Amino acid sequence: MAKPSLDFWFDFASTYSYPAAMRIASLAETSGIAVRWRPFMLGPIFKAQGWATSPFNLYPAKGRNMWRDLERVCAALDLPFNRPDPFPQNSLLAARAALVALADNWGESYCRAIYRAEFGEGRNIEKPEAIGEILNSLGQDADAVLEQAQSTNIKSQLREQTDEAQRLGLFGSPSFVTAGGELFWGNDRLEAALDWARR
Amino acid sequence: MAKPSLDFWFDFASTYSYPAAMRIASLAETSGIAVRWRPFMLGPIFKAQGWATSPFNLYPAKGRNMWRDLERVCAALDLPFNRPDPFPQNSLLAARAALVALADNWGESYCRAIYRAEFGEGRNIEKPEAIGEILNSLGQDADAVLEQAQSTNIKSQLREQTDEAQRLGLFGSPSFVTAGGELFWGNDRLEAALDWARR
Repeated sequence: MAKPSLDFWFDFASTYSYPAAMRIASLAETSGIAVRWRPFMLGPIFKAQGWATSPFNLYPAKGRNMWRDLERVCAALDLPFNRPDPFPQNSLLAARAALVALADNWGESYCRAIYRAEFGEGRNIEKPEAIGEILNSLGQDADAVLEQAQSTNIKSQLREQTDEAQRLGLFGSPSFVTAGGELFWGNDRLEAALDWARR
Repeated sequence: MAKPSLDFWFDFASTYSYPAAMRIASLAETSGIAVRWRPFMLGPIFKAQGWATSPFNLYPAKGRNMWRDLERVCAALDLPFNRPDPFPQNSLLAARAALVALADNWGESYCRAIYRAEFGEGRNIEKPEAIGEILNSLGQDADAVLEQAQSTNIKSQLREQTDEAQRLGLFGSPSFVTAGGELFWGNDRLEAALDWARR
């Protein structure tokens, strides 16, 4: 019988997706769940509800609490944490490269490396050079991957995936969706989503 | 030595404050923490950041997820759940009566009874009659409590408490603040807040 599966929807600009991305593989393995990593762009979804930037910037009290809370969450998980500047970062190229990577067998390592650079080390992950460095560190041919990431095919794949996220009613990252369509939002719901997927 | 303490800030209109209110007493007892129950009004705080109603109404996808998630959270805790209509409810009188109750020794029971009626049974908790019924069920003199709840003293006490919440940077309910000023937001952070208070 096939393993039960869970879709892990994430935007590289999203703060709480960092601990989720670092935790999901080992938790899913323990639970016997197959995880599909699905990058998407939150920007168009935020824009559709009238937000021009992250709600953490629009609502300063919420933002202050988020940074402090994320710091505590990472400390509890023994994850390095450094606040990136600017925030949010433009995650478009990183997401396109993720689609290239995830079609191969090093996709999850790439996604974790992007999140670790961004929120663990506070590095910028917007520019081709920054992503190229990470690709090199994974033993990949950075130029080739970046070229493929900018192909029409990959661009429209990411657009379709973002449309699908919107159709599913996703409004934040990380989100987890079971095969039966049950939606869970937030790093705090990762365990509950895996439990649900196993039922 | 005095017990370490934690302030529990809540608005009766807030959905996730229901499970928090039902859980906090026993968790705090186990942790050896003294909890101060502090009702406040979220409305003025939301208004100050441009929201005329609950963000769960302003952002439908967020709202749909919240109701479903709250249902799952309550099921996991074996708490009854019924969605109240209208939402959010006007919690002003309930909060004023809470200040009367909390000055006496039946305050926590009253707060739990309001939350249980509202989110456990889906009952309206806006009107004096509705609150009076709950007061009666607690063996209190409903008329006397409601009269005191409408006194100038109690009205300004609630206003001051809401001002204090705003000064503390609170932006949602439930919130937990330690004696050292560490802020935790959300039912999901209750355990972390208690741990922090004990350090």
